[in-house]
Amino acid sequence: MSHKMFTGLLFLFATSVRAQSDDSLMIRKLADEILVNGKAYENLRTLTKQVGGRIAGSPQMVKAEKWGERALKTAGADNVWMQECMVPHWIRGGQDEAYFTATHNRKHQKIDILALGNSVGTGANGLKAPVILINNFSELEMRKNEVKGKIVFYNYKFNERFINTFQSYGDAGVYRGSGPSWAAKYGAVGALVRSMSHATDNSPHTGAMNYNDSFPKIPAAAIGLIDADLLEASLLKDDNTVVFLRTLGRMMPDTIGHNVIGEWKGSEFPDRIITIGGHLDSWDPAEGAHDDGAGCVHSIEVLRALKAIGYKPKNTIRVVLFANEENGLRGGNKYALEAREKGEQHIFGLESDAGGFTPRGFGFTVTAAQMAKIKNWLPLFNPYGVFEFTEGGGGADIGPLNKLFKTPLAGLQPDSQRYFDIHHARTDTFEAVNKRELQLGAINMAALIYLVDKYGL
Amino acid sequence: MSHKMFTGLLFLFATSVRAQSDDSLMIRKLADEILVNGKAYENLRTLTKQVGGRIAGSPQMVKAEKWGERALKTAGADNVWMQECMVPHWIRGGQDEAYFTATHNRKHQKIDILALGNSVGTGANGLKAPVILINNFSELEMRKNEVKGKIVFYNYKFNERFINTFQSYGDAGVYRGSGPSWAAKYGAVGALVRSMSHATDNSPHTGAMNYNDSFPKIPAAAIGLIDADLLEASLLKDDNTVVFLRTLGRMMPDTIGHNVIGEWKGSEFPDRIITIGGHLDSWDPAEGAHDDGAGCVHSIEVLRALKAIGYKPKNTIRVVLFANEENGLRGGNKYALEAREKGEQHIFGLESDAGGFTPRGFGFTVTAAQMAKIKNWLPLFNPYGVFEFTEGGGGADIGPLNKLFKTPLAGLQPDSQRYFDIHHARTDTFEAVNKRELQLGAINMAALIYLVDKYGL
Repeated sequence: MSHKMFTGLLFLFATSVRAQSDDSLMIRKLADEILVNGKAYENLRTLTKQVGGRIAGSPQMVKAEKWGERALKTAGADNVWMQECMVPHWIRGGQDEAYFTATHNRKHQKIDILALGNSVGTGANGLKAPVILINNFSELEMRKNEVKGKIVFYNYKFNERFINTFQSYGDAGVYRGSGPSWAAKYGAVGALVRSMSHATDNSPHTGAMNYNDSFPKIPAAAIGLIDADLLEASLLKDDNTVVFLRTLGRMMPDTIGHNVIGEWKGSEFPDRIITIGGHLDSWDPAEGAHDDGAGCVHSIEVLRALKAIGYKPKNTIRVVLFANEENGLRGGNKYALEAREKGEQHIFGLESDAGGFTPRGFGFTVTAAQMAKIKNWLPLFNPYGVFEFTEGGGGADIGPLNKLFKTPLAGLQPDSQRYFDIHHARTDTFEAVNKRELQLGAINMAALIYLVDKYGL
Repeated sequence: MSHKMFTGLLFLFATSVRAQSDDSLMIRKLADEILVNGKAYENLRTLTKQVGGRIAGSPQMVKAEKWGERALKTAGADNVWMQECMVPHWIRGGQDEAYFTATHNRKHQKIDILALGNSVGTGANGLKAPVILINNFSELEMRKNEVKGKIVFYNYKFNERFINTFQSYGDAGVYRGSGPSWAAKYGAVGALVRSMSHATDNSPHTGAMNYNDSFPKIPAAAIGLIDADLLEASLLKDDNTVVFLRTLGRMMPDTIGHNVIGEWKGSEFPDRIITIGGHLDSWDPAEGAHDDGAGCVHSIEVLRALKAIGYKPKNTIRVVLFANEENGLRGGNKYALEAREKGEQHIFGLESDAGGFTPRGFGFTVTAAQMAKIKNWLPLFNPYGVFEFTEGGGGADIGPLNKLFKTPLAGLQPDSQRYFDIHHARTDTFEAVNKRELQLGAINMAALIYLVDKYGL
């Protein structure tokens, strides 16, 4: 695009920032602070590059907690502490390996896999077994007598038709979470799950699976999309394809982890607490930049920016970097349970756990009356790209607050198109995050926290 | 983000596609066609990888025209032809080189530059001159007596505060377009312009500049952001910094180029023409993926998808891949002028020239009555991520249609946050385009064309 055509558009953009209410001016101030002096991007760089992947129980988890403590202090929290909780400790145990061999050519075709989180390994010698192509659970039921002794290859496709890719994830996720145990029920000895992604590359996407204790625990891994297509093609040609898997994952005893909490005391109602958070843990093969480094640095940035512009919150604002969202949710549960023990009053929770992409909206778990009030605020967000306030939403980690206290919740909804390209894959790195997109997320979160703090719900 | 929290959100997304009007069903059909059978991404791959950068007059321009002809035929155009027009022929002439040397250390500090399009070169021996840091035009006026014999370094910053980055471009672009001649007016012998970008890398961003014939033509180049900061720092420490520039650009005689046009005859009003387009030319150092390969494949995809779902347009639909938008606009002008000569009736023009990112809206250059009508359609676009119909907008190439015929215009407005990271830089490659984001642009464009064709304006 050449330069000429924009000058005519200038008046247009200018109008969007012309609303002169105090609130819009305050939000503009927050936006300027974040766009010009923002620390979210540099915070994310240090988390991803100096700590890296940080699954619960790993040495990196400990480093990440220290990182969080420092970052919250630097951002200006009055008080920073670690809230201890026991976390599961799954380890990958080594390099995952796999190949398949079709009888018609006997060639070992290497395939790129990642063992699923929480899964058991095959043992050092690996597992070799015939593989059966299963496209969905109804097919599994129909072919249950053919499964015994085989590796079930769930080839359920990530639905391209959904516009919001989280819907595709909601649709396909059960194959990763429960598929291995359903296969084991019929005697399968292993499971391969097509990665939950629209990506055009071959990088496999791991994530948590959960065994059903009624059935044997079998090894389970995600397979990259290109290799899934290759394996499918081989099976369609040759039923007698054999897969070799070698995964070394195992569960260690639970260990100590922490929610890292930074608090900024309220000036009027210090006992009323607003929680803003993301989760500090991430899958091991990547840097956990979008999932959920972004949510952590978003949340820290909200506190920093409000403080930097001289805002005095009425209520206490807490930034929580939650432990163990990915494979246990122990941090989120602990936070709510301790709040109940201490009789804390939680008036609002906001979570960012859908990536550091340009924000499109917020989802709210609130009453109808609260939603009506919130909807009046929407025009204040339009200049910053947010046009959707939808019902339902929040986040896994703040969910328990709503269960225990009916705390109103909100979740940031960034653009979802690229999220599952990198989600739980090696490609979820700092380089996949755009500085300004990340900043816009923090701006909109800060605006929402400002409005909730000022007006209540 | 773990899987659990999405199942609760499912009902929410489903509601957005529940509107049962014929139009929403038709748009859903278009969306499915594009998401499942889309060709835009693969078309973009062949354009960027088999043709590459394709500035007007280059051998790649000719290859790109042939690519366009094939792609339009494959998409199902009834008739495809080349509309000849003379285009300027600027060549880079070789590798741009530059360094600076401060008196205090004498070290040659290499800097990454790209000569600006249309600029003259330094000659093979290069140009060495003292450099003067000029932050903006008022500073140039104040220091005009110090400029003679020097290289002016325009260090005007891309404004971070604008939310829509096109506004930053509108603000800064004049330093690239007119800066060199303003510097020459006061005796400068060369110009370096800070790249128009928020990027975090050092890749320089070229683009067109235009000489004012009243002043000497001096060499001019864009400098990468990190190097611009280095040079600024050096100059703030040491006024006697010297820059060496070697650029080999020159204007060759005008040559023959073509708009590539694919037509699909209307079933009711074949004489009424709807134009959809992007520009086929691109800057030479990159692949022109977002600028404007995306607009070309968007436009082709609109025709392909409408045809694939069995739609019969009332009006004639023309896809135009315009020649020479970047440094001359000869294609856009030719198209409108020939339309006038032939007495064609142009009822609507739609352009995509702001990248292949997730669409956010459309800008319209229409009458107030037309705008009122268009605004009623907005809810049909919401499920596909478009929430903004703004006044003003269209595109450089279809602009002449409005000038000559008052043709109503629209321009696709994708998310702008990443556009200037790669705009006119080596980083504008196929890999910078996300398949689904690209597809969503085509979906919304196809929906708009369908509505305009069906209901008129």
